[in-house]
Amino acid sequence: MANFDVHILGCGSALPTTRHLASSQVIDLRDKVYMIDCGEGTQVQMRRMRIKFNRLNHIFISHLHGDHCFGLPGLISTFGMLDRTADLYIHGPKDVERYLDPILHLFGKGLPFEVKYNHVDTGQQALVMEDRSLRVYSIPLNHRIPACGFLFEEKPKEAHLIREMADFYRIPVKRLRGIKQGEDYVTPDGEVVPNARLTRPADPPKRYAYCSDTAFSPQIIPIVEEVDLLYHEATFVTADIARARQTFHSTAAEAAEIAKRAKVKRLVIGHFSARYDDESLLKAEADSIFPGTILANEGMLLSL
Amino acid sequence: MANFDVHILGCGSALPTTRHLASSQVIDLRDKVYMIDCGEGTQVQMRRMRIKFNRLNHIFISHLHGDHCFGLPGLISTFGMLDRTADLYIHGPKDVERYLDPILHLFGKGLPFEVKYNHVDTGQQALVMEDRSLRVYSIPLNHRIPACGFLFEEKPKEAHLIREMADFYRIPVKRLRGIKQGEDYVTPDGEVVPNARLTRPADPPKRYAYCSDTAFSPQIIPIVEEVDLLYHEATFVTADIARARQTFHSTAAEAAEIAKRAKVKRLVIGHFSARYDDESLLKAEADSIFPGTILANEGMLLSL
Repeated sequence: MANFDVHILGCGSALPTTRHLASSQVIDLRDKVYMIDCGEGTQVQMRRMRIKFNRLNHIFISHLHGDHCFGLPGLISTFGMLDRTADLYIHGPKDVERYLDPILHLFGKGLPFEVKYNHVDTGQQALVMEDRSLRVYSIPLNHRIPACGFLFEEKPKEAHLIREMADFYRIPVKRLRGIKQGEDYVTPDGEVVPNARLTRPADPPKRYAYCSDTAFSPQIIPIVEEVDLLYHEATFVTADIARARQTFHSTAAEAAEIAKRAKVKRLVIGHFSARYDDESLLKAEADSIFPGTILANEGMLLSL
Repeated sequence: MANFDVHILGCGSALPTTRHLASSQVIDLRDKVYMIDCGEGTQVQMRRMRIKFNRLNHIFISHLHGDHCFGLPGLISTFGMLDRTADLYIHGPKDVERYLDPILHLFGKGLPFEVKYNHVDTGQQALVMEDRSLRVYSIPLNHRIPACGFLFEEKPKEAHLIREMADFYRIPVKRLRGIKQGEDYVTPDGEVVPNARLTRPADPPKRYAYCSDTAFSPQIIPIVEEVDLLYHEATFVTADIARARQTFHSTAAEAAEIAKRAKVKRLVIGHFSARYDDESLLKAEADSIFPGTILANEGMLLSL
């Protein structure tokens, strides 16, 4: 069965701590991995978590704060040393190119692959990328600078073939693909066997939403409604709400409120401020509104 | 007594591994720390090693390869968040400014301190920086791009006061500083007590040399002669000498040969290629020429 896994590489906020790394996640879906944000240290964390560099072709950057993108130059340099040849796509606000291009000019001479930018308009929900496994949409966020989250929506999967029926009708192998995609089967005698007798429905497509960094933004609720998993930043506890407002971040309670109103299936919170030694405060606060909230942690794997 | 400590923050080479971090060191001398190179992840490593951010005013960059400078944007951003106000001096090849300046322009708006560049001519041995504790000189190296090492030379220290003699002559406290710096003492009766009777000689000034990255370069020998500690890159073993030549790196044997000919007191090797799981090979090779060679490691403290 197809996997849809979210790996947490880093879930701290801007100030370095010994507890967390800067933001980065990797989605492992079918034969590819997709990266969201790339804070300093991401490439080393990929090594630690044994994520294959050559399966990554698309990186999504939420916004141009260092803790979400200062790992890009090192990662791209490493791709060069590993003799990568496949194009690398970077999706994000247009300043990503303004940031990276001069660095690649200085350091990336002779890179054996191309870095291609896809400028994302962070102000609207729009299709950012599509391949044969998924579609990725932007989620407008409300931060100090242009920022967007990303919604990863798996494409519909094939129906499950009922093996016994296939055997019973002696369906040739070359017909099976079409049947999984919805075709009926016509026997050599001309009997039409309806698709519904041959298959069980496909698993429903999975959806994952990443929302960081952002102030409390109820306008994202319709976009993330009923997703299988929502990662929402929870930089502060409610006691520090003044600081949250000032810096355009959310509290754990606000993250949980979004999750509750959007009826998401699971909530994982992250981007914890360096000020909290004990993150159980953040979890307790979120749990009181959205029970079972997950605290992100480096190395965590969440399977949808 | 004054300390002169070298902390190894990272001693790997360009490709990330789970064993080592990218190059960075911190020298802790009297009341200040000085950084040499600043690879990706350096700021987190400073936190882990409990090195105080506000004691750092000078960063020395050997050359513009990413594994020696991709940690600068994150470190500088963190200084900003910590409300640093003291100027930060960055000494290195002039391309350091070409690299950093556009990034600071995009990310560093409103930094509460100034970043000042000191362009180092990597082609000659010259005084790079001087303060009341030390002088720092460049060491021309031979790499694929302009690169230099750095020689840290402690300034002469004060002589040791012989407490019993000071008591015997009832020397006023306000005279002691001058005596430690070489003055004689004149008693109220007019008797001249020569300085040599009141003091023991100061400890000899310590010297530390950092040479990375470089091909085998015997021309550095007179510069690093008899230093207390030499850090020399040893990216490869002799079996991979063709690769060392091609990339302008040194073998462990060559690092040891430099140390031996320069009669340095101690040698520590680093910048290990990702290809060696077992670094005892590098140590064995260096030891056969310079016995007692130290293998650098993250978190290591070397006291001079």
